[in-house]
Amino acid sequence: MSTSCNTSSGLVKGDQPVSANPLTGKQYPIPTKIDDRDKIEQFLQLNQGKPVVVVQGLGFVGAVMSVVVANALTEEYAVIGVDLPSEASYWKIQVINEGVFPVVSSDPKVEEFYNKAKGKGNLLATCDPFCYSVADVIVVDISLDVQKESGDAGKLQSYDVDLSGFKAAMRAIGDRCKEDSLLLVETTVPPGTCEKVVTPIIRAGLEKRGKSTDKIMIGHSYERVMPGPEYINSIQNFYRVFSGIDEKSEAAAEAFLRTIIRTDEYPLTKLKNTNSTEMAKVLENSYRAMNIAFIVEWSRFAEEAGVDLYEVVDAIRMRPTHSNMMFPGIGVGGYCLTKDPLLASWAKKNLFESDSGLPQSETGVEINDQMPKFAFDYLVKRYGKNLSGKKVLMLGVSYRSDVGDTRYTPVELLYECLKQAGCVISLHDPYVQFWEEQNLDIEQDVQKLLENQQDIIIYCTSHSSYKDNVQMLESIKGQGQLLVYDTIGILSVEEITSLREKHAVVVLGRGDI
Amino acid sequence: MSTSCNTSSGLVKGDQPVSANPLTGKQYPIPTKIDDRDKIEQFLQLNQGKPVVVVQGLGFVGAVMSVVVANALTEEYAVIGVDLPSEASYWKIQVINEGVFPVVSSDPKVEEFYNKAKGKGNLLATCDPFCYSVADVIVVDISLDVQKESGDAGKLQSYDVDLSGFKAAMRAIGDRCKEDSLLLVETTVPPGTCEKVVTPIIRAGLEKRGKSTDKIMIGHSYERVMPGPEYINSIQNFYRVFSGIDEKSEAAAEAFLRTIIRTDEYPLTKLKNTNSTEMAKVLENSYRAMNIAFIVEWSRFAEEAGVDLYEVVDAIRMRPTHSNMMFPGIGVGGYCLTKDPLLASWAKKNLFESDSGLPQSETGVEINDQMPKFAFDYLVKRYGKNLSGKKVLMLGVSYRSDVGDTRYTPVELLYECLKQAGCVISLHDPYVQFWEEQNLDIEQDVQKLLENQQDIIIYCTSHSSYKDNVQMLESIKGQGQLLVYDTIGILSVEEITSLREKHAVVVLGRGDI
Repeated sequence: MSTSCNTSSGLVKGDQPVSANPLTGKQYPIPTKIDDRDKIEQFLQLNQGKPVVVVQGLGFVGAVMSVVVANALTEEYAVIGVDLPSEASYWKIQVINEGVFPVVSSDPKVEEFYNKAKGKGNLLATCDPFCYSVADVIVVDISLDVQKESGDAGKLQSYDVDLSGFKAAMRAIGDRCKEDSLLLVETTVPPGTCEKVVTPIIRAGLEKRGKSTDKIMIGHSYERVMPGPEYINSIQNFYRVFSGIDEKSEAAAEAFLRTIIRTDEYPLTKLKNTNSTEMAKVLENSYRAMNIAFIVEWSRFAEEAGVDLYEVVDAIRMRPTHSNMMFPGIGVGGYCLTKDPLLASWAKKNLFESDSGLPQSETGVEINDQMPKFAFDYLVKRYGKNLSGKKVLMLGVSYRSDVGDTRYTPVELLYECLKQAGCVISLHDPYVQFWEEQNLDIEQDVQKLLENQQDIIIYCTSHSSYKDNVQMLESIKGQGQLLVYDTIGILSVEEITSLREKHAVVVLGRGDI
Repeated sequence: MSTSCNTSSGLVKGDQPVSANPLTGKQYPIPTKIDDRDKIEQFLQLNQGKPVVVVQGLGFVGAVMSVVVANALTEEYAVIGVDLPSEASYWKIQVINEGVFPVVSSDPKVEEFYNKAKGKGNLLATCDPFCYSVADVIVVDISLDVQKESGDAGKLQSYDVDLSGFKAAMRAIGDRCKEDSLLLVETTVPPGTCEKVVTPIIRAGLEKRGKSTDKIMIGHSYERVMPGPEYINSIQNFYRVFSGIDEKSEAAAEAFLRTIIRTDEYPLTKLKNTNSTEMAKVLENSYRAMNIAFIVEWSRFAEEAGVDLYEVVDAIRMRPTHSNMMFPGIGVGGYCLTKDPLLASWAKKNLFESDSGLPQSETGVEINDQMPKFAFDYLVKRYGKNLSGKKVLMLGVSYRSDVGDTRYTPVELLYECLKQAGCVISLHDPYVQFWEEQNLDIEQDVQKLLENQQDIIIYCTSHSSYKDNVQMLESIKGQGQLLVYDTIGILSVEEITSLREKHAVVVLGRGDI
């Protein structure tokens, strides 16, 4: 059995490729040969008797999952986090082993859990797939992307789902795993994936090695990890559904989940097959995406009719059946709502060979993708060509309040539209020091930015520190006449009234556009 | 001032037109001249000192509204219900004055409220528009329809909103009302109607008569009347939003609503203009319609993937933000969800001259309209040409559980598809003795129908009496092998298992199609 693998390609030829820690800038050369066998065996010696859990993927989900498993409620595990020796991921493995957790979080429990694991010595990181061969449980937390082609205005033009990376990850497991291990897929996958993709690959890998193909256990249980102040709780204290490809898989998945989740308060729900749990996840997210898209359509109407949609939605939400109606906003971001409806629609057509996808759910994504463009359009309507050269301060870059997550943030399209229109843009976000996707440093001191006269101040993310912030409001009032543009409804009616004593204030969806 | 009006046209020429009570069959000849002036003046004499409230429209909403106002919580009103002297409505006026309430309801309070009003003598019905001239408050509860053109499969092909009837009703008021009366529109109207249609018509009528146009008060407050066991409560004990065309209208609307609604428990919400309340109503209903349409799309996917969507939705609904996710079903019926998204989209284009309507909301209606056809398609798939001649028992005709309301019931399209396919159909509904739209008597004794051997038994409406009904289930089990087709998910898993000992059981959306 090979215990080494080649590093991923696509790196600078000639030079040794490096992986940089975006938090510190420190660079880690990526070795061309990976061999952590000794390190892993030593780790297992120190953790003798403990069941071995490998967490595949050390992103937003896997990294935190690995410390939750290392601090399981009713079991003591030896946990190995594994990721690819790529530019994007290699540094994470190094920093985990150096004693630093690779995710900065507003949840103090993340650091606490990591430090506990460090103290116990039951957490190791590696990029050596050898680890799969020693695992009793393999938790799959890698990402599975949708390739979207969008036009200038954010309009979805086409999309595809490329399963090759995911399949390669499954082959890495199938080629090495024990024949009676539990493979628990947490990744959000196109419905049908565990049955039609994962199981055949794993069984083929076992068969090739002369192993039994009947003993392997494969389960699916989607996570609901929410980066932010409730990061750890979103794993430990949250409802879960699970399923398995057969009864023993169901039982093993349930037994494992019981050791890490407070199932007394958050009981597990077993669904009848893996298609069901896979569908539940994308259905949940599609539902949310579509409900947001629905309000977008009505925001436009509200603006035309001089209706304050916030006031209207507040009134409607008094009915319990309508309590989750969305508010208008700048758009949808993050890793789930922007792609899951497409994953589902793709699966319907490609894995189940249906004549049609899920047109309504796809439309939801299409509408949401264009929301930042709608927000921008108002400025074009207001300023026309004079938008060029305007000094614009954008408050918030991440897609979610109190989180430094910029993945697929709708602020990006608004930023690009403004840049293209010739605006001079300043950016602030208390949770984002460096905007990876735009390769930009983000100012952390909002007061400093408010010392310079702006023409337009745009509220983009509803961070708590922007709410009821008297100092900020006073600074804005201290500026010469300008436009305050609230795209997320963060300003209270009182604040709007007060700002209007001097400035123009426009709130997306409040009917004053 | 004329106190008479001509009866509506479209009736049999030569013969005197009649209006028949569908509950008793009794026919009432419609007079060619209406003059209730003496009767109204006599009524007012007997109710001296009481503010006069005219309720325009005596349908599902107005009839019950009139008894609620006649039994107002904090005021004693003289109430006049008014409707057109048409085939459909004239009998209602006659029976109300004869001492019988025209709506049969499972809510005992309806009868109780009507009898109390009868005892007090503060309720009169008329079709003489003279009544508007004596009103302090006019509550508009007439209907405003959408004209839908649908294909065979229920697919929406085009639609229009004809405001002529509504405008005529407003002119009837404007030509007679006191200059300082309150006009409270409760009808679900296209957003913009109070401002752009009602107000100009009423003011023109006042001006023509040399009256002041400044004193009139016009408000909007949509009802949420639910025929069924909570009929009266759906007016008295329910949240309301309201608005007015100016401050005095808002104040008058609020003061009136406070006399009939338990505002201590269900506080009123004032919105900033009539566009806002008009929009709130159609937004609420569009939201619901779209959420149903969303689940339709996923039901098809669930069937293809062998997923039990009931199980999945149950699991998702554990999250408070998703607790109102819909279940699969046969379709959407009733007066609101089938048309309100179209009213809104029409208004956007026609009253606000927008380039686009509300495509996503329209699609919701389109999808929902086709749901009964999807339900039928399964039978075609299963039986092919052999569907012809099959004996089919349909359980439930109304669109809603425990209500005898057949307006736009989705059961109708399923019924028509089955009839066209050559099925021999029996119908049962404990709340519908006569199916007006199909001109059919409905059997009331389900056991009698279950004595005849059926080929297919279809659950169409989730009436309580069909739930956990051991006798019914035993009778079904007593039949020779057949198909039980549950289109609404009324059967429990235990009942399905038990029925499957003998019969085939298929539940729409449970993945066994």
